[in-house]
Amino acid sequence: MSSHLVDGLGTTDALAAVFSDESVLQAMLDIESALARVQSGLGLVPEKAAAAIVAAARADHFDAAALAREARASATPIVPLVAALRQRVASVDRDSAAFVHLGVTSQDISDTALVLLLKRTLPLIGGTQRRLAQKLRAISDEHAGTMMAGRTLLQPATPITFGLKVATWHAGIRRSWSQLQAAIEAAATVQCAGPAGTLAALGDKGIAVRRALAEALKLQDGPPWHVERTRLASVACGCGILTGALGKMARDVSLLMQFEVGEVSEPGGGSSSMPHKRNPAGCTRALAAAVRTPGLVAAFLAGMGQEHERAAGGWQAEWPTLAALIQATGAASEAMAEVAEGLTVDAERMRRNMDAMGEPMLTPAGAAEALRQELLDTV
Amino acid sequence: MSSHLVDGLGTTDALAAVFSDESVLQAMLDIESALARVQSGLGLVPEKAAAAIVAAARADHFDAAALAREARASATPIVPLVAALRQRVASVDRDSAAFVHLGVTSQDISDTALVLLLKRTLPLIGGTQRRLAQKLRAISDEHAGTMMAGRTLLQPATPITFGLKVATWHAGIRRSWSQLQAAIEAAATVQCAGPAGTLAALGDKGIAVRRALAEALKLQDGPPWHVERTRLASVACGCGILTGALGKMARDVSLLMQFEVGEVSEPGGGSSSMPHKRNPAGCTRALAAAVRTPGLVAAFLAGMGQEHERAAGGWQAEWPTLAALIQATGAASEAMAEVAEGLTVDAERMRRNMDAMGEPMLTPAGAAEALRQELLDTV
Amino acid sequence: MSSHLVDGLGTTDALAAVFSDESVLQAMLDIESALARVQSGLGLVPEKAAAAIVAAARADHFDAAALAREARASATPIVPLVAALRQRVASVDRDSAAFVHLGVTSQDISDTALVLLLKRTLPLIGGTQRRLAQKLRAISDEHAGTMMAGRTLLQPATPITFGLKVATWHAGIRRSWSQLQAAIEAAATVQCAGPAGTLAALGDKGIAVRRALAEALKLQDGPPWHVERTRLASVACGCGILTGALGKMARDVSLLMQFEVGEVSEPGGGSSSMPHKRNPAGCTRALAAAVRTPGLVAAFLAGMGQEHERAAGGWQAEWPTLAALIQATGAASEAMAEVAEGLTVDAERMRRNMDAMGEPMLTPAGAAEALRQELLDTV
Amino acid sequence: MSSHLVDGLGTTDALAAVFSDESVLQAMLDIESALARVQSGLGLVPEKAAAAIVAAARADHFDAAALAREARASATPIVPLVAALRQRVASVDRDSAAFVHLGVTSQDISDTALVLLLKRTLPLIGGTQRRLAQKLRAISDEHAGTMMAGRTLLQPATPITFGLKVATWHAGIRRSWSQLQAAIEAAATVQCAGPAGTLAALGDKGIAVRRALAEALKLQDGPPWHVERTRLASVACGCGILTGALGKMARDVSLLMQFEVGEVSEPGGGSSSMPHKRNPAGCTRALAAAVRTPGLVAAFLAGMGQEHERAAGGWQAEWPTLAALIQATGAASEAMAEVAEGLTVDAERMRRNMDAMGEPMLTPAGAAEALRQELLDTV
Repeated sequence: MSSHLVDGLGTTDALAAVFSDESVLQAMLDIESALARVQSGLGLVPEKAAAAIVAAARADHFDAAALAREARASATPIVPLVAALRQRVASVDRDSAAFVHLGVTSQDISDTALVLLLKRTLPLIGGTQRRLAQKLRAISDEHAGTMMAGRTLLQPATPITFGLKVATWHAGIRRSWSQLQAAIEAAATVQCAGPAGTLAALGDKGIAVRRALAEALKLQDGPPWHVERTRLASVACGCGILTGALGKMARDVSLLMQFEVGEVSEPGGGSSSMPHKRNPAGCTRALAAAVRTPGLVAAFLAGMGQEHERAAGGWQAEWPTLAALIQATGAASEAMAEVAEGLTVDAERMRRNMDAMGEPMLTPAGAAEALRQELLDTV
Repeated sequence: MSSHLVDGLGTTDALAAVFSDESVLQAMLDIESALARVQSGLGLVPEKAAAAIVAAARADHFDAAALAREARASATPIVPLVAALRQRVASVDRDSAAFVHLGVTSQDISDTALVLLLKRTLPLIGGTQRRLAQKLRAISDEHAGTMMAGRTLLQPATPITFGLKVATWHAGIRRSWSQLQAAIEAAATVQCAGPAGTLAALGDKGIAVRRALAEALKLQDGPPWHVERTRLASVACGCGILTGALGKMARDVSLLMQFEVGEVSEPGGGSSSMPHKRNPAGCTRALAAAVRTPGLVAAFLAGMGQEHERAAGGWQAEWPTLAALIQATGAASEAMAEVAEGLTVDAERMRRNMDAMGEPMLTPAGAAEALRQELLDTV
Repeated sequence: MSSHLVDGLGTTDALAAVFSDESVLQAMLDIESALARVQSGLGLVPEKAAAAIVAAARADHFDAAALAREARASATPIVPLVAALRQRVASVDRDSAAFVHLGVTSQDISDTALVLLLKRTLPLIGGTQRRLAQKLRAISDEHAGTMMAGRTLLQPATPITFGLKVATWHAGIRRSWSQLQAAIEAAATVQCAGPAGTLAALGDKGIAVRRALAEALKLQDGPPWHVERTRLASVACGCGILTGALGKMARDVSLLMQFEVGEVSEPGGGSSSMPHKRNPAGCTRALAAAVRTPGLVAAFLAGMGQEHERAAGGWQAEWPTLAALIQATGAASEAMAEVAEGLTVDAERMRRNMDAMGEPMLTPAGAAEALRQELLDTV
Repeated sequence: MSSHLVDGLGTTDALAAVFSDESVLQAMLDIESALARVQSGLGLVPEKAAAAIVAAARADHFDAAALAREARASATPIVPLVAALRQRVASVDRDSAAFVHLGVTSQDISDTALVLLLKRTLPLIGGTQRRLAQKLRAISDEHAGTMMAGRTLLQPATPITFGLKVATWHAGIRRSWSQLQAAIEAAATVQCAGPAGTLAALGDKGIAVRRALAEALKLQDGPPWHVERTRLASVACGCGILTGALGKMARDVSLLMQFEVGEVSEPGGGSSSMPHKRNPAGCTRALAAAVRTPGLVAAFLAGMGQEHERAAGGWQAEWPTLAALIQATGAASEAMAEVAEGLTVDAERMRRNMDAMGEPMLTPAGAAEALRQELLDTV
């Protein structure tokens, strides 16, 4: 559990809302509702019971903090949530309560909720990524001919153009965002498999229920993944790679913004003791995310050796890890979009710094422009 | 940012309260209060101003969510918090506002708050650790002569006693808790160094202010550690090692509790689809913590290369990482204390399993008892 | 630096050969040869010089240990290697020495050598993966109707079939191998960009040289990736995910092979003190790889924030990390192929264990078979 | 398995020698020798057999590569090594062969060898650390009054002295080296516990054998730690923290050495394409180590949940991880000792850069000197 002050730099308002108690709780309840409805459509649940379940399945009827506390006894919040939902349904219609959560298991709800929420982050991060990509492309085009020092091992190298540098940022960010997007879409597969992944409790209607549930929730249909976590692992890795690519841009901008270099500047913010000072606050947020994500990826991968048909430990470690990863990725994306949009470029200073180095003038003009175009074409 | 349902298994109620917005905010404000008081005592701040600052510095006067949002502009919540505190003081007494946060920098408040909060976790985890150690010692004594199968690479080995096995758990947990405790106590050092770690803004009273502040906050006094993070790193590592030792016990208990082994059983909890089933819920929570902590330790260590007098990224990555680590450690401690306290031991089954293996009967009696005592003496 | 006894369980003979000094050195020299040849074809290098370079570029002419020692002065072995190659060429033909390494930079050679070697691992791991996949499919088919206990949180759950369990292993391993294969193929792109990634030193022939070099080395052509490491990061992550999937199978087999469970058995090996004992040695090697890889993935990702046109630290950290990752992945693949090929299945014991649990008999027959087919169809 | 060219930057010659096949093999054989001798002294082994074992136990009699290959069958090289040693002893004296490896288990040899080798790294890294500490102290003293810009978030802050900055490096490096040293000394405890950690196979002489073995090998005596790995974990963490502290110094030096800053310079080395260029090669090697170590620490911690009396996976993952960690730590130490010893400081440039920033001149003189002394006193 953490708080705005502890975690606030590692998320965005929109992503924090996706993983708020209300949102998580409603996602879980939406799945119970959808399940009741599709089971009713398939004749497994009376219409009246489905209606009672749908009516009861509203987040504001339940106490997330209490559910989380009770979750410790079974190592999942779904057990107390299902009990509470049954009780609520029973209070309205005793007979309908037995149809809550019919034939499924807690992991079905938990896993499906997780990918529902991950899928909701796609348009949020996607919008930011689009802003960032467009701006980077524009800066790269504008500075296609802006000469500056190349620097290797933090020392002078032969000249480059700023347009080429920005195109390199663009290529890494673009490629890794495409992969993360694809990874989330692939992971957004319904989990509906029953207690040990056999769908046995739904008799001969198991796969039909699963397909209908996938359709109702706008998720992909597919076989059980209760202990086959490679798609989620690709999401975790995709977050790590994209944040790494954003961190590369942040590293460069923060270095170019040093007082002694002064080639670019981000809007930045003040300090508590020196209000006149301009800080690379956006780069700092992205770099903080890039410091955290490799370890979070390792935390996810370390849980993959999941025992038999449901893991003791590896599964339960996933939620906080993935929630932290996707929020850090979104925070870094937003920070760098703001940096790109507010970036001031001092082309004159770039030339002066380069000239001061006295490097042999291997004008990069010809090939550099071709390379820049190749990099901008990365998908 | 996360929530009860995302993070609930990875903390305890008491630890979650320590890292709640209200608690974090009040810790930060307590430091501003203490600073004003000690600066007043040293003649740097008028008594009236100190009183106004103390009166204003109450968490319920401020909006943590709003501060966290504003924090993005400067990459620290202290900048907006100091501004808000100044404004609140000014609204009561315009002249006193200039004495808020006198001569210090945002990192002084943030770092000192972090170690204040870490120190508060000591009695909480310490109480749990004492319960656990006492119970493990008692179980080990009770089963000093209880023979059971030794198992290497998950296969039969020569016999051991259950008392010896429990003493091994005890040794690892005890040793690593002692180290974590010492690491937190060492880290609980005041940070009071000013904008670049020189105390220059406090003239010749800098060290006197620092010492008095340390005393007021019951922290150790010492030189600046604004970019010297090795003591915090030892806290992070200490969490990783202790959780690893708890995870070893959890791994063993969960294996011994398998239906086919049946030698011990923890109280456990139900499942949503099979209410009659008994689950190793306590072990599962500890194992989940043990899956997450190695990566979190890596995340902390990855931030240690902090640039110059304040890092861009490495520093800002610390709060969520340490908060997650200490809470996971406390959650695993509590889980294993509950497991130990509720543990059922089936000595008869232990003997039967051992006999079934037909291993050569190298009775461990003599040396095993001496080894058990050595292990219980681990400090 | 390590040795057979330190690292031997974490590789295969064939993969260790790929990363041996001789192989690495020859790969680097092959690139210098190919460069001279294509530059000769494009009129940049005299034919005679190209021939002299090709003749000199043989690994057995150079001392890898000495080069590695000299590498410390420049943080790359390419600097001393190029010097040594120039000297060797000069000793035969003084005029030709100037054409060694023409217009390129040390990272061009190092990066291209890295992906050449990674590409060579594809058929090696691929062959093992094919053996493993075929055997898993055969076992799954054979045991499509073999009933066994499902187990969640290491406790009894409703029955499954062994065929379904094996199909789940197959799905995770298959999917993640496909991804790793694609990641390596994408990463196998020539690096030929010159000192700061502009190809400036090759005038208007830069891109032509690069294309010809790619063709000569059978690598993909593409823009510079000297500080755009997302494709290599995908290789690192792909290793982590695949090893995680193999670790899941290894975890299950080692649990099912416990004396008290006895449902399957791998060929295994002896112990030094109990020669009659059968150990899950194959699973153990795969599990050891799965313990190591998450942290190695984190180590790769932590280096992605590469400064400007060549990183100080992040780049140099890649070789040992990727070499360890791909070898661990190959070792785990080979171990599990051996386990699958030597697996003994005790269907009778599976049924007995299941019956002993007294779980409600939700025969999984119908849906389980459909799910099994879906899982086997995973690509 | 890797090679000079893959791993050469991540070690020193002396440390690579410690983990060479010959050294590892001889360490393992030395333990078998010492065991035979102490068992002979205690009347468990005939003098003649002990002499035969000691005579046979020479590394050059065995083939490390072959042993490593055979190790895969049992997941430890000790099984084939003991078999080969028995065979060699038998070829001289058939009756003595039965006394090889008497009453112990493969893990006893492997664990004891690991800590013997770790202990041998102490004087190697210790010598380097002493050089580094002395030089840092001297630089700090020399530049106690050298004013320079403080920099926070890579932007100008109030002035500091270079002496204070160097004292901060010194404090972090000194503290973490003290801790690593203590961790290695604590870990250097003999492992002698027999097949399941009970010493049963040695009857009533088990503890006497263990004590004598510890004395013979100059290791500490103590109870079994076959699955209690917290002391080794402290070694792993100690490597991570020390390398982090060295990485902080390397980060600062490489930033101060930028062409545009030019305040310090390390001896550095050339590049393959620009021979005149001076590179921060020492800092780069230390930074590369600092990138790799956090993930390696995570890899160690991830293996701590070791099953029962010997782990399947977690134990076998330790050797390559610890060997890589300690070598990276030594490599970073050596690199930074060379950097400190060859450091050029441009005090004039420091003042010029500071003046150019136009920061308010809060001369740090008084407090800064006191803080510097406090930092130098860190132990």
